[in-house]
Amino acid sequence: MEFHNNFVCPLLTDLYEVSMVYAYWKSGRQNNISAFDLFFRKNPFRGEFTIFAGLSQILKFMETFKVTVEHINFLKQILPNADPEFFIWFKEELKLKDVIVYAPIEGTVVFPREPLLRVEGPLAACQLLETVLLNLVNFPSLVCTNAARYRLLCGPNKQLLEFGLRRAQGPDGAMSASVYSFMGGFDGTSNVLASLTSGIPIYGTHAHAFITSFSGLSDLEQHADEPLGNSSVPFREVCMRNRQALSCEYTNDGELAAFISYALCFPQTFLCLVDTYSTEESGIPNFLVVSLSLVQCGLRPVGVRLDSGDLAYLSKFARTKFKELDEKVISRYLFWLTQKQAVYSFHATQVGIILDDFKFENLKIVASNDLNETTLSSLELQGHAIDCFGIGTNLVTCQSQPALGCVYKMVEIEGSPRIKLSQEIEKVTIPGRKKCYRLFGKERVPLLDLMVHVSEDEPKAGHRVLCRHPFIENKRAFVSPALVASVRLESTCPAYCLCPGHSSARLCLEGRPIQKFYAPLSAVAYSSCNYRTLYEIRQYVQEQLKYFREDILRPVNPTPYKVSLSDDLFTSLHSLWMAASPIADLC
Amino acid sequence: MEFHNNFVCPLLTDLYEVSMVYAYWKSGRQNNISAFDLFFRKNPFRGEFTIFAGLSQILKFMETFKVTVEHINFLKQILPNADPEFFIWFKEELKLKDVIVYAPIEGTVVFPREPLLRVEGPLAACQLLETVLLNLVNFPSLVCTNAARYRLLCGPNKQLLEFGLRRAQGPDGAMSASVYSFMGGFDGTSNVLASLTSGIPIYGTHAHAFITSFSGLSDLEQHADEPLGNSSVPFREVCMRNRQALSCEYTNDGELAAFISYALCFPQTFLCLVDTYSTEESGIPNFLVVSLSLVQCGLRPVGVRLDSGDLAYLSKFARTKFKELDEKVISRYLFWLTQKQAVYSFHATQVGIILDDFKFENLKIVASNDLNETTLSSLELQGHAIDCFGIGTNLVTCQSQPALGCVYKMVEIEGSPRIKLSQEIEKVTIPGRKKCYRLFGKERVPLLDLMVHVSEDEPKAGHRVLCRHPFIENKRAFVSPALVASVRLESTCPAYCLCPGHSSARLCLEGRPIQKFYAPLSAVAYSSCNYRTLYEIRQYVQEQLKYFREDILRPVNPTPYKVSLSDDLFTSLHSLWMAASPIADLC
Repeated sequence: MEFHNNFVCPLLTDLYEVSMVYAYWKSGRQNNISAFDLFFRKNPFRGEFTIFAGLSQILKFMETFKVTVEHINFLKQILPNADPEFFIWFKEELKLKDVIVYAPIEGTVVFPREPLLRVEGPLAACQLLETVLLNLVNFPSLVCTNAARYRLLCGPNKQLLEFGLRRAQGPDGAMSASVYSFMGGFDGTSNVLASLTSGIPIYGTHAHAFITSFSGLSDLEQHADEPLGNSSVPFREVCMRNRQALSCEYTNDGELAAFISYALCFPQTFLCLVDTYSTEESGIPNFLVVSLSLVQCGLRPVGVRLDSGDLAYLSKFARTKFKELDEKVISRYLFWLTQKQAVYSFHATQVGIILDDFKFENLKIVASNDLNETTLSSLELQGHAIDCFGIGTNLVTCQSQPALGCVYKMVEIEGSPRIKLSQEIEKVTIPGRKKCYRLFGKERVPLLDLMVHVSEDEPKAGHRVLCRHPFIENKRAFVSPALVASVRLESTCPAYCLCPGHSSARLCLEGRPIQKFYAPLSAVAYSSCNYRTLYEIRQYVQEQLKYFREDILRPVNPTPYKVSLSDDLFTSLHSLWMAASPIADLC
Repeated sequence: MEFHNNFVCPLLTDLYEVSMVYAYWKSGRQNNISAFDLFFRKNPFRGEFTIFAGLSQILKFMETFKVTVEHINFLKQILPNADPEFFIWFKEELKLKDVIVYAPIEGTVVFPREPLLRVEGPLAACQLLETVLLNLVNFPSLVCTNAARYRLLCGPNKQLLEFGLRRAQGPDGAMSASVYSFMGGFDGTSNVLASLTSGIPIYGTHAHAFITSFSGLSDLEQHADEPLGNSSVPFREVCMRNRQALSCEYTNDGELAAFISYALCFPQTFLCLVDTYSTEESGIPNFLVVSLSLVQCGLRPVGVRLDSGDLAYLSKFARTKFKELDEKVISRYLFWLTQKQAVYSFHATQVGIILDDFKFENLKIVASNDLNETTLSSLELQGHAIDCFGIGTNLVTCQSQPALGCVYKMVEIEGSPRIKLSQEIEKVTIPGRKKCYRLFGKERVPLLDLMVHVSEDEPKAGHRVLCRHPFIENKRAFVSPALVASVRLESTCPAYCLCPGHSSARLCLEGRPIQKFYAPLSAVAYSSCNYRTLYEIRQYVQEQLKYFREDILRPVNPTPYKVSLSDDLFTSLHSLWMAASPIADLC
């Protein structure tokens, strides 16, 4: 099964695209050569960077683009007055073979106004694609950026898992969230189907229902009377002895039964949800009883999951209890106890071996329960003992900003640049077909991004270039970049790819243009470089983020990264702007 | 093409469901008879009601539930240590034929803690369904509720259109948003595919790109030189004369060309986006030039769309200009002008006929541009002249709360009720299998909802019943409902359906139990009543909302609606709670 949504088809579009296609066709302009930019105006989450994602889905869609008879019949229904010839043309001649998409490599760090896609080709085809391309870029980029922010916040050493399937906006919202949060830096998901379709590592244990399905120890079935691991004593018996030894008689019996049953099923991956009744009074003690029993059978328990309550306090509480158990075990008190009772088959030395490289202290503590950037920052401030965060709702629905406001604007037609004005200055588009470069300083830190017209020369390392603010005339700077890689836009040369193990990977990351050429879809030019694995893209995201200044990446009040225009582009923008603006006549 | 997402399959689930299914199977408990409630704890959007949606998708999924060889092969990969017999059982014997789902009719107004689904049957099957059922209820109910709130806010006479495809969370997020916002009270969508799959009315005109694709009047193609409607004069010529007559020579030429071209393609549905260059100085004047020309050709223009700027001001500005044109036309000034120039073929009487039942004043004003509840309320306060709102991002991503926090909790197993405690009191579940009734007062206004255990008698009209707050002992009330319809839970009797045109529809709405029985999936008992059309459900939503007190439905600081327990259920909840709570041992 593939990661591909069945709704993605030519009619996943707004009616007005179809109306416009009709109007273009009706006036004979359907094949006019046009260029559209897909871009956003503002970084999400009050941040100052965005990760571009969704490209491989777009390329798949474009490759398999097909208008069916069902589509045509429906169009006839909704455009009852249209010329019948139109539908024949739509079915037979509206193809994407002449459409070219320029885009950054998937996973590239991008900024406002930079074209995430530049779509060039016949007017009608490029127009029809608007809505579906926006849909396919918007959410993947948003959730990938969200995930990257969590990764920056938690640092490289915490494990981050996506747990959002149940709360996502529909099945596809969930699948996209799993894939693109992994791309943005998460370590895995709970979503089985996302793992099947996209090879993402998968994690999960049990829910409260599993615990509440046991009301007492009498609910334990036969298999509890079988021994486990290298022990020959029934596992239930081992646990009962340890319950007594650890003075845990007052914990919830159903919960203990559930843990025992779970240990019997998953002796290698024993991780328990401990908050069903009371984390402190029941969950942690029961968990330790069963964990100690596993260790005594030569097995290694994994850890606990906290899903409610004060996570800072409870995680520290759990860690303390883990350490205390180590101390008890080391003091041989328990070992002595168990020997005395003579119920274990293994030798003292075996216990010794296990204890040498197993410590309860190192058990994993997983936390979930409506985590978001604010609660994670607060946990950091309070101090906590959590090793792994399971993040659901806030990650997958991008709660603090659930949509990236991408737009798709015409920038050129038949060689002539076009502008879209607006009452709101930030809605004015930058006309013309543009290339975009990232200029690096001496420390190989990105200084700014520069857009130039496709006809202009590329900026060169060591050569001074004037960079201008798009709208504020007196905001400008000379930049002499230390690094700008040679630009070969018309190529899919591997030098522009970050393939792990590829010797030029470093060079590419530091200096390549962020706009990357994608060959006409009809051509064979799709090199394997265009499709990189999810794992490669994920690594690419993390490597890029290392280069940016921290103040640009920080979660709260970050510094904006500059996106500037060449002097030519600035002049062209402003002269078009003046020409297109009607002069108000106040009276 | 059907409205059905290809990702909806048995493995669209969290790994922990599979782990638990394995643990149940391993301990021989997979067929224990269990019951789970799916419910939410808090109404969304700081509101006090929710619309239940997603049921037909759930029933479709359950009917077509099929574990494939690919699924099994993947499960073997992710559970490498599991007993091989498990996979045979999973493929061959894990069926839904014995699973029964109780649910309210789709579109029912529901409240916190009420079971939206009660799922009964073999433990393993019921457990496996958890995640996918949550996913399928969560977003549909959320977006349907969001739409219903917009409808309440705007009243029944404004047209509300869903324009969110491009900003939705993935293709399925978009499709769901189109369907469920229509269910909640919207009038249509821009999404072509949603209209194809679900029959929703579709709307749309053109984008800024269409306007900017014209740079001047010379871009008008041949067909502008053809006459339109009942005129024999080239349409371009008619427009040019009117441009002069209305003194609009300074407007943007490209925009005027675009409007003329669009009118030629869509003479019956002429609605223009007027903010590309300047709504006041160019868009509205150009629109009026072309509109007047259409009218003079015997056609009826439709209106304008505003997509930026001050919508209150601009809509009033537009309305004023529309009225002014009526006055000019009535004063016959323009009529005289056109006659004098002798370019029109039609007679004075024809113009008279058109003017008799067409007024520019009544042209439709559509507004879009990031509308949400706050901006709509603000528009109402300022006064505006908008007839139709196109709502995108805020509607489809449910920006102010992008997830409904539904949960799925075990409430009974093998006849014995189960509770899930929590450090947080609102996370404690209400144990046991429950029925839920809506009790109406004398004015046929819903007083409160009452949950009773399935074994209890139903409340009866005119009989006093004690209703208790679930957690606060001294909060209770006697209620003597004026109306409680007779309850036949084990039936799919049409008396419980709101089928438009059905004579008992009124009665059903007023008195039926909100829990409705859905037959075992294997049975033939699926009456047509279980699947109602989207249009019927949409009407059902609006009819119910009429009955609730306004203060419960209002958008800001609404009054909570009471959901109470029978005395028996209260007692059972609290005795289980005490029994399951471990006593802390402070020291």
